[in-house]
Amino acid sequence: MSSSIGRIFTLTTFGESHGDAIGGIIDGFPAGIAIDREGIRAEMARRRPGSTRLGTARNEQDEVRILSGIYEGVSTGAPIGFMIENASQISSHYDDIAHKFRPGHADYTFQMKYGIRDPRGGGRSSGRETACRVFAGALAKQLLAREGIAISAAVTAVGGVKASSYEWKPPFPAPLYAPICPELEAMIKAIEDAKADSDSVGGIIECHADGVPAGLGDPVFDKLDAMLARAILSIGAVKGIEFGSGFESAAMRGSENNDQMRMKDGNPSFLTNNAGGILGGISTGERIILRAAVKPTPSISKEQLTITDASEDTTISVKGRHDPSIVPRAVVVVEAMTALTIADALLARRCYER
Amino acid sequence: MSSSIGRIFTLTTFGESHGDAIGGIIDGFPAGIAIDREGIRAEMARRRPGSTRLGTARNEQDEVRILSGIYEGVSTGAPIGFMIENASQISSHYDDIAHKFRPGHADYTFQMKYGIRDPRGGGRSSGRETACRVFAGALAKQLLAREGIAISAAVTAVGGVKASSYEWKPPFPAPLYAPICPELEAMIKAIEDAKADSDSVGGIIECHADGVPAGLGDPVFDKLDAMLARAILSIGAVKGIEFGSGFESAAMRGSENNDQMRMKDGNPSFLTNNAGGILGGISTGERIILRAAVKPTPSISKEQLTITDASEDTTISVKGRHDPSIVPRAVVVVEAMTALTIADALLARRCYER
Amino acid sequence: MSSSIGRIFTLTTFGESHGDAIGGIIDGFPAGIAIDREGIRAEMARRRPGSTRLGTARNEQDEVRILSGIYEGVSTGAPIGFMIENASQISSHYDDIAHKFRPGHADYTFQMKYGIRDPRGGGRSSGRETACRVFAGALAKQLLAREGIAISAAVTAVGGVKASSYEWKPPFPAPLYAPICPELEAMIKAIEDAKADSDSVGGIIECHADGVPAGLGDPVFDKLDAMLARAILSIGAVKGIEFGSGFESAAMRGSENNDQMRMKDGNPSFLTNNAGGILGGISTGERIILRAAVKPTPSISKEQLTITDASEDTTISVKGRHDPSIVPRAVVVVEAMTALTIADALLARRCYER
Amino acid sequence: MSSSIGRIFTLTTFGESHGDAIGGIIDGFPAGIAIDREGIRAEMARRRPGSTRLGTARNEQDEVRILSGIYEGVSTGAPIGFMIENASQISSHYDDIAHKFRPGHADYTFQMKYGIRDPRGGGRSSGRETACRVFAGALAKQLLAREGIAISAAVTAVGGVKASSYEWKPPFPAPLYAPICPELEAMIKAIEDAKADSDSVGGIIECHADGVPAGLGDPVFDKLDAMLARAILSIGAVKGIEFGSGFESAAMRGSENNDQMRMKDGNPSFLTNNAGGILGGISTGERIILRAAVKPTPSISKEQLTITDASEDTTISVKGRHDPSIVPRAVVVVEAMTALTIADALLARRCYER
Repeated sequence: MSSSIGRIFTLTTFGESHGDAIGGIIDGFPAGIAIDREGIRAEMARRRPGSTRLGTARNEQDEVRILSGIYEGVSTGAPIGFMIENASQISSHYDDIAHKFRPGHADYTFQMKYGIRDPRGGGRSSGRETACRVFAGALAKQLLAREGIAISAAVTAVGGVKASSYEWKPPFPAPLYAPICPELEAMIKAIEDAKADSDSVGGIIECHADGVPAGLGDPVFDKLDAMLARAILSIGAVKGIEFGSGFESAAMRGSENNDQMRMKDGNPSFLTNNAGGILGGISTGERIILRAAVKPTPSISKEQLTITDASEDTTISVKGRHDPSIVPRAVVVVEAMTALTIADALLARRCYER
Repeated sequence: MSSSIGRIFTLTTFGESHGDAIGGIIDGFPAGIAIDREGIRAEMARRRPGSTRLGTARNEQDEVRILSGIYEGVSTGAPIGFMIENASQISSHYDDIAHKFRPGHADYTFQMKYGIRDPRGGGRSSGRETACRVFAGALAKQLLAREGIAISAAVTAVGGVKASSYEWKPPFPAPLYAPICPELEAMIKAIEDAKADSDSVGGIIECHADGVPAGLGDPVFDKLDAMLARAILSIGAVKGIEFGSGFESAAMRGSENNDQMRMKDGNPSFLTNNAGGILGGISTGERIILRAAVKPTPSISKEQLTITDASEDTTISVKGRHDPSIVPRAVVVVEAMTALTIADALLARRCYER
Repeated sequence: MSSSIGRIFTLTTFGESHGDAIGGIIDGFPAGIAIDREGIRAEMARRRPGSTRLGTARNEQDEVRILSGIYEGVSTGAPIGFMIENASQISSHYDDIAHKFRPGHADYTFQMKYGIRDPRGGGRSSGRETACRVFAGALAKQLLAREGIAISAAVTAVGGVKASSYEWKPPFPAPLYAPICPELEAMIKAIEDAKADSDSVGGIIECHADGVPAGLGDPVFDKLDAMLARAILSIGAVKGIEFGSGFESAAMRGSENNDQMRMKDGNPSFLTNNAGGILGGISTGERIILRAAVKPTPSISKEQLTITDASEDTTISVKGRHDPSIVPRAVVVVEAMTALTIADALLARRCYER
Repeated sequence: MSSSIGRIFTLTTFGESHGDAIGGIIDGFPAGIAIDREGIRAEMARRRPGSTRLGTARNEQDEVRILSGIYEGVSTGAPIGFMIENASQISSHYDDIAHKFRPGHADYTFQMKYGIRDPRGGGRSSGRETACRVFAGALAKQLLAREGIAISAAVTAVGGVKASSYEWKPPFPAPLYAPICPELEAMIKAIEDAKADSDSVGGIIECHADGVPAGLGDPVFDKLDAMLARAILSIGAVKGIEFGSGFESAAMRGSENNDQMRMKDGNPSFLTNNAGGILGGISTGERIILRAAVKPTPSISKEQLTITDASEDTTISVKGRHDPSIVPRAVVVVEAMTALTIADALLARRCYER
């Protein structure tokens, strides 16, 4: 089931960047939930090309048509089908790349897997596919909000510039979607410099889930962090993930890294949160914290070496209006995948409750 | 299905550290494969407590009994049931912790999830559960070997000491299972020092898969790296994962990070492998490279603050013969989860071939 | 995953009878298959309301829009998204039934399950949903045809009149889609009589799969007949299924029912096919034969007793142009579900082949 | 996942008739349920060879060893691993059939599927595998009993003799496990006659589920009847299933078959139950009624024509102590699969509840 994710709250998607439409089916969404369409639109706007001056100037409308599952503004429990028409594309930009494998892209691997390839844009591996994730994530967030769970993410590093000190006060402002920090201007400049150099930069996105009750996730293979890792790594440009103290914990001692406990106002509490809110794959009730490493956009107009699908050496310069960094626009995608995973764990937990 | 992993090549496990036995069922293993029992035994030995002088002195035999699916040394295509008896345990070690939540352990989260808890050892969240993974991984490796695929992992950092330069020449030697490097002695000393201090240390495990053909993995949600991330993060102590240039790619430019291509001896080749062998979720044919961050063992005899299951503040000092670092013994577990995931992707791919 | 079926070749659907559209996603369809759109249209026509003079006079166009997964007439291996717009409905027919539970319909059970109900038509339980099955089945048939597998079904009984003797020569002609038999006119009359009486009739649909190689299906829970039974029973009006000698085998002796074997022209052959082509859940290489019992259409204009959703006794007479028997139009739906299940088993088998 | 069934309450099994052991893993069983071991033993006894004088004289002990998931008599929420050792078998009975395909058995299809076959007994397709189903079913029944749900099945026809009138008063007595009816002696004689003729007979098993609340099951593909059909057809000898009026509904009119409704003592009620307790795939709150057609045991000592695995014509007379009818012993297996399916639907429903 390569196009589905989730066990109870599931998302199945379809669509290529240059086909007729993209879309999907959300199944397992509970009945009787009032849907805030404006809230969905706001989420879609954060991902939309042209939404941030740091991104591509390419403008897409991404109007989502909901086809089923919602009646008079309320979910019915039936699957929610949705689609986003693709605007008619000027494919001439792609003529040049129809027979060349773009470095850092999935062109070569798709060719090897399927022996056939839709040469217009990225096809199924295009970033456009994430619009479906953001739509489903927006619905998941509305479900989670009813349970007091809030998901927020921000850019904490880009192009090698790292936010040193900041408070976590979402929503984080465009164009960078980063917290207010001393390095904010330097981060923006890193993207602008890359753009000026016909190049691109990567970055780090941190995501928090607040209000998650203790007890979500399962031992062994369906650990909450394992499921989140799969969900986040399924985003095209993500090359790494960590939870809580993450890679730093590898250099720590147990006595430093263990989160000790005390009763506080009659409730169990942890003195630190190096675990990032998950112990043994199950939520602790503390804030869930994860960080995703996003690679620099592979589409750059700088010339690079590559080969053709006829096995000849060549060079390529990827034309078109590409983002010098997709990190700002990926923030809402990371939130969406986090929301989907936690919503699934929340519904899954109900099965086991007495 | 919290106790299962894999779509075609599946592993389902059962068992608590202090119950009668642990074990599992491997389903989807192809028929007609000769099984090397000695090879399985060698893998099990690498994980076994007492196998490395850097680990616990606790000695367990971990003799696997294969109950089905193999007839006269050859797989029949039927599910492979297996079990490992638990030696009779002296539970007195655990009396002290029966009502206290051990910091860094899943005691508290299990209590919150199930409202009931087997107080002897870690129950289902015990590291003992990984013996089932290693057994299944050993079978997966034998399947992969027939296709020319080899999996190898090593400790590349421990207790804050990082291997600076080394060649990848498996098998890596006990006690540390690290490559030969200038820091080898310092790494070992970091563990010994932690032990002397009644403390523990974490580390980094790097894993390579060589010989993986291009075309494994699926676009979108079942990306090969997403599935590997889930598999590796499902190992109890792992708190992060990265592929190829991973978190470093977040600070790189596209022109640096993209792996450019050239024809070489008539075959497509990549000039670098920052992708870690996976592009768009599909294997490139290059070496797959991942790194897992392992947290320090939470069981330490140093005194820590915690609470009881009757909501009272207390302190705890975890007795018993625990590993000052589980990193060396986790190497074979990381290999196993990598092997299981790649074997599953290999079999899954066959469905789509014409 | 209540809206999905299949393990490798999967179909996920959405849509209510009176919403904006119905549709679905086919995943796991192999790349490189040329798609015959005319063949799809012909299949859709067989199910379409108004397609047979024995059915409803209601005319729907059921034009399928393929949104992804097919490029220049050839499958790409990507998921195939599709949708069928619902024509604007005159909902006034349904005002009368908005608050009454129609006997034999899912109105009451939906209300009990979801606590909310789309009162326009059958919502998710409408027969309209089967259009998605027929579309997916048409694609499955094209895949199967390449392997020499043909699926054909026919009405063998309706309204208590049973075809006594006939040859199996598909395609079977409209309006009844039954084989040529002595009872053909009586069968048609049974439907016409029911219509004249404001009533409805059920019937039996027999389905054959020819050319299925030996070895499809799995032992134990994923037996080919178990999977077919689930697929066929998932069609709204079906209340029973049998394979080969089926319910008659219950009255037979082993010596009668066992299919004895002989070599024939150098190949293994069975002297009879009481097994209906499946032994131990795995195909024998003989024709697969199943029979589905279809209940009479519950929508009748004859007055019946029922209650309202305010728990009051009332009567109901279901208006609108309903089929006096859906059996003729269900023939292609039974074929579709059979084709989907066998296509899935065919692809699943490849995983296990050496 | 050919060896697993269920979505939330799952059973995965392993084991061949002549291997070391059979067993399985039950996952998704809720925590905190007290387990009645004596109740389990009583269920196992009903299936055990030698348990009824109408069955085989072969005596097996079928002692189930529970390996995990239950602590001090109460379920912990962890997977329940279990095994049943196979007594040492005298395989000489099987020497004769090692190279012949037994008519009506899966010998030929296994050979075609796997290209390899465990020639001792039925291997994975042996009826012995049902012991695992009965054990899991016994646990499911204990879970269902807490919700007021009771499952009961009985033989209503055997060898062509059908119970004409009876009350449903479980438990039904050995040796036949049929309700008290005028034909009881004739049914028993039909089995004894078959035995005397070195032959076998099939029969019908009817199963009821009482106390199932309205609202279980899902629309479209996971209909409760579809899931039950798959579960029951996955039992080796079952060749057909029907719900409520089933195949008879095919000859009925809508006005006869529809179950009309009235308020009764303030609650919705149905005047008849032709639906067998399921409408649109969702339980109505009425008794669930299904009937399974069981074929005659294929193992008969009467001589039959067959071929060898070297493609030669031969004859076979299956020796050993086989049941002249497995129908009586299959009663508890039908109950088990019904219980497993309803338990799964019960837990699945909780996910969707607000």
